[in-house]
Amino acid sequence: MKRGIVLFGHGSRDPAWREPMDAVAARVRAQSPGALVKCAFLELQQPSLPLAVEALAAAGVREVTVLPMFLGVGKHAREDLPRLVDVVRARYPELTLVVLPSVGESGPVLDLLAILALQHASS
Amino acid sequence: MKRGIVLFGHGSRDPAWREPMDAVAARVRAQSPGALVKCAFLELQQPSLPLAVEALAAAGVREVTVLPMFLGVGKHAREDLPRLVDVVRARYPELTLVVLPSVGESGPVLDLLAILALQHASS
Repeated sequence: MKRGIVLFGHGSRDPAWREPMDAVAARVRAQSPGALVKCAFLELQQPSLPLAVEALAAAGVREVTVLPMFLGVGKHAREDLPRLVDVVRARYPELTLVVLPSVGESGPVLDLLAILALQHASS
Repeated sequence: MKRGIVLFGHGSRDPAWREPMDAVAARVRAQSPGALVKCAFLELQQPSLPLAVEALAAAGVREVTVLPMFLGVGKHAREDLPRLVDVVRARYPELTLVVLPSVGESGPVLDLLAILALQHASS
């Protein structure tokens, strides 16, 4: 079964803003050459989550994992994303959509950010 | 010499938004009990970066490390933060202010986010 991965971020008018998301996408592709990976954005940039899923579905993907690239877990993560997920599920009922916790809810991410803060503070 | 650490994020009207930042601050304090750690925000929440540094300086801190908690590296990281750093440096010329790269520019962070995306996609 073909799987897709969507890295979902806020979006920005600044084209350089997405570079870290593209860098994560490149790492995912390198580690899992069969994975179809897309970045999607809440606002200010395209594609939206529904458009990204549409492209994956058109490529034959039956299961999509969404990683919300939010460090802060507020309205975007807890309201806007679930609303978009509902839109996608209604549009593609045959698709399995797995929404992971936001990256800011990951213990290993929080551990690593603390290490970054301390590395230079103690140098 | 007393050192301070500022975790600098965007800020949000949603009080829950900052929880991951507070969680990182708690980890930093646990790993380095002598560190004075503060969260600061670009907008919508207090304290601002200058106010956070003011509090650290009042506590006797002479060197402050700032970790920009931005996954996307756009205007906030490349323009707004340097502008605030200039304000702080002008106001506290005796203070050493070390501004780390944004967390979205950290290779280990990007590696970890790719692992998060792949974990569930292959389960």
